[in-house]
Amino acid sequence: MNEKLQWLRNKMNSLNLQGMIISNPTNIKYLTNIDAEGTLLITRKENIYITDGRYIEHVHSILTLYDEIIVYDAKDISKDDYENFFMFCENVGFEEHYITYATYKEYMIKYKINNFVETEHIIEKQRMIKDEEELENIKKACSITDDCFSYLLGYIKPGLTEKQIAKEIEEYYKTRTDGLAFETIVASGENTSKPHAVPTDRKIQEEDIITIDMGCKVNGYCSDMTRTFFVGKVPEQVKPIYDLVLKNQLQVLEDYKEGAVIRQITRKVENDFKLNGKHNLIHSLGHGVGLDVHEPPYICARNESMLKENMVVTNEPGIYISGKFGVRIEDTVQITKFGCIKLTNSEKNYIII
Amino acid sequence: MNEKLQWLRNKMNSLNLQGMIISNPTNIKYLTNIDAEGTLLITRKENIYITDGRYIEHVHSILTLYDEIIVYDAKDISKDDYENFFMFCENVGFEEHYITYATYKEYMIKYKINNFVETEHIIEKQRMIKDEEELENIKKACSITDDCFSYLLGYIKPGLTEKQIAKEIEEYYKTRTDGLAFETIVASGENTSKPHAVPTDRKIQEEDIITIDMGCKVNGYCSDMTRTFFVGKVPEQVKPIYDLVLKNQLQVLEDYKEGAVIRQITRKVENDFKLNGKHNLIHSLGHGVGLDVHEPPYICARNESMLKENMVVTNEPGIYISGKFGVRIEDTVQITKFGCIKLTNSEKNYIII
Repeated sequence: MNEKLQWLRNKMNSLNLQGMIISNPTNIKYLTNIDAEGTLLITRKENIYITDGRYIEHVHSILTLYDEIIVYDAKDISKDDYENFFMFCENVGFEEHYITYATYKEYMIKYKINNFVETEHIIEKQRMIKDEEELENIKKACSITDDCFSYLLGYIKPGLTEKQIAKEIEEYYKTRTDGLAFETIVASGENTSKPHAVPTDRKIQEEDIITIDMGCKVNGYCSDMTRTFFVGKVPEQVKPIYDLVLKNQLQVLEDYKEGAVIRQITRKVENDFKLNGKHNLIHSLGHGVGLDVHEPPYICARNESMLKENMVVTNEPGIYISGKFGVRIEDTVQITKFGCIKLTNSEKNYIII
Repeated sequence: MNEKLQWLRNKMNSLNLQGMIISNPTNIKYLTNIDAEGTLLITRKENIYITDGRYIEHVHSILTLYDEIIVYDAKDISKDDYENFFMFCENVGFEEHYITYATYKEYMIKYKINNFVETEHIIEKQRMIKDEEELENIKKACSITDDCFSYLLGYIKPGLTEKQIAKEIEEYYKTRTDGLAFETIVASGENTSKPHAVPTDRKIQEEDIITIDMGCKVNGYCSDMTRTFFVGKVPEQVKPIYDLVLKNQLQVLEDYKEGAVIRQITRKVENDFKLNGKHNLIHSLGHGVGLDVHEPPYICARNESMLKENMVVTNEPGIYISGKFGVRIEDTVQITKFGCIKLTNSEKNYIII
């Protein structure tokens, strides 16, 4: 059996769960590498994946004997089969944050479950810590993101629209990766003051400020990087804000390491922003990156937990001056015992094209 | 109060519901025209939309006084406020097919609800019947889809890839509508044998068969049309299959009308396919179209209900010869008392480019 399924079985054992129904496709991909529509059952003796005719062939092409997963076409499963899967299970876990109330009731009846137990994100919590293979995928996605940004610095010229640049990024990723990890943000001029700006038909102008937030997927794993840069020159009014954001981004890179308290790291940035011009940190300082581009841990002042080795998180302080401009600088990094390793490595000092 | 909210209040009254929590964003868009992230509460006396800072301004720009909807920023609502919303409600409805089990439990506690009642798709069922304004939007989306197809017949040439054609369709829609209703299917040659083909880098060749399944959105409402057509000539082996599909598609247009039983319409096609070459109808014959491109009613042999006036549904029989080719012909149509009105009107006899 693969290591992740083995981990889950041990975890279930410690929670006195004799069975579990896994419905979240990202968790199924994590545990089995299967990317299809279906349900994973962990029963006393077997790992069972139930899908339908559209996916049977594809699923078989992904799995090996080593996975020890039995694949069923839902149409071949009888009422009795369903009732037998968890026959001698006292407690069966389910993903209460994923399945609807209607599905919960349907499962209860279909599988004749005695005690259906909420599993409180056990798989999501484990997903925070990346193994070697996951790290390799994220590193590759980050490296291609650096390459793409480097390409963009030569490509972007006044006259191009934000939409054209976003499209170019999508094309770049499509030919080299699984595609975009999220909808690319390309914001220019005053549009940079909106943290979640959607690319518009605005044309890049001389002396513009540009923010690009981009990422791709490699074998399902994401990258996430933002740079704010300039056409021709850095406007004087922007310099103090850029310097303040960059100073804090570098400070966070110093602070990120196993055992560091997320709340404290965030508070430090918030305080420095307030001290230097009453700026607020209006979005979180960062988030986990993996099969989802936004996943736990969330780096914000409400989170009192500590960073752990081999978490992969972003570091993305930003300041936004309403109606004028904004600056955000973001890297994806890997937490280690003694610090962090930057996985995106594009230039961060004033970038002028 | 707008008519749809008024309808819902009457419906709730008949079900002895004094309150309801609506979480499905498509249902919220249907009832209020709001397209944002938030929750709609129907309380004894008020309609309340709870959202957050990102959407407040946008939501206010959509609503008018006539809507009688009070908008709250979630951060301004206290624990007591939540408990007061449904204070004197005996039964409060919720969308058991939309909210997760975890959200169900959270709502129970947060709103201190006595009796939380499953509402069995009441809003989705009402959404099946379109009013004048909804029909106008769908008609417009269908008309632009016809225009786009007509444009494509001049645009498509041997040498273009499926992906290039799909991109051209996306561009066409982007400049005229809210954008794609779903990921366009462009399949050529043997790829047409896969009903859900994803566009590839395969280049269009002389004497190719091509299937395009496309649709756009206008004010949130979808269109959906498929045509199968030919480069240079119609291959002899394809003709009997094309004729059989078209014959049945035309027959269904005859059969679609208020009071017609969905099961019977579907069975007729299935039987004719079997009689004429043992072909199976491997996907459903059609589906409702509205704010979602796939929504009830589903046109398949399992559905024993009847069509009703002002339902908008597709009619899309298809035959797929594994590894060789496939033919699907699809229109979006409006059901009337005495028949149906085709909303997509592109040519259906042999189309040769």
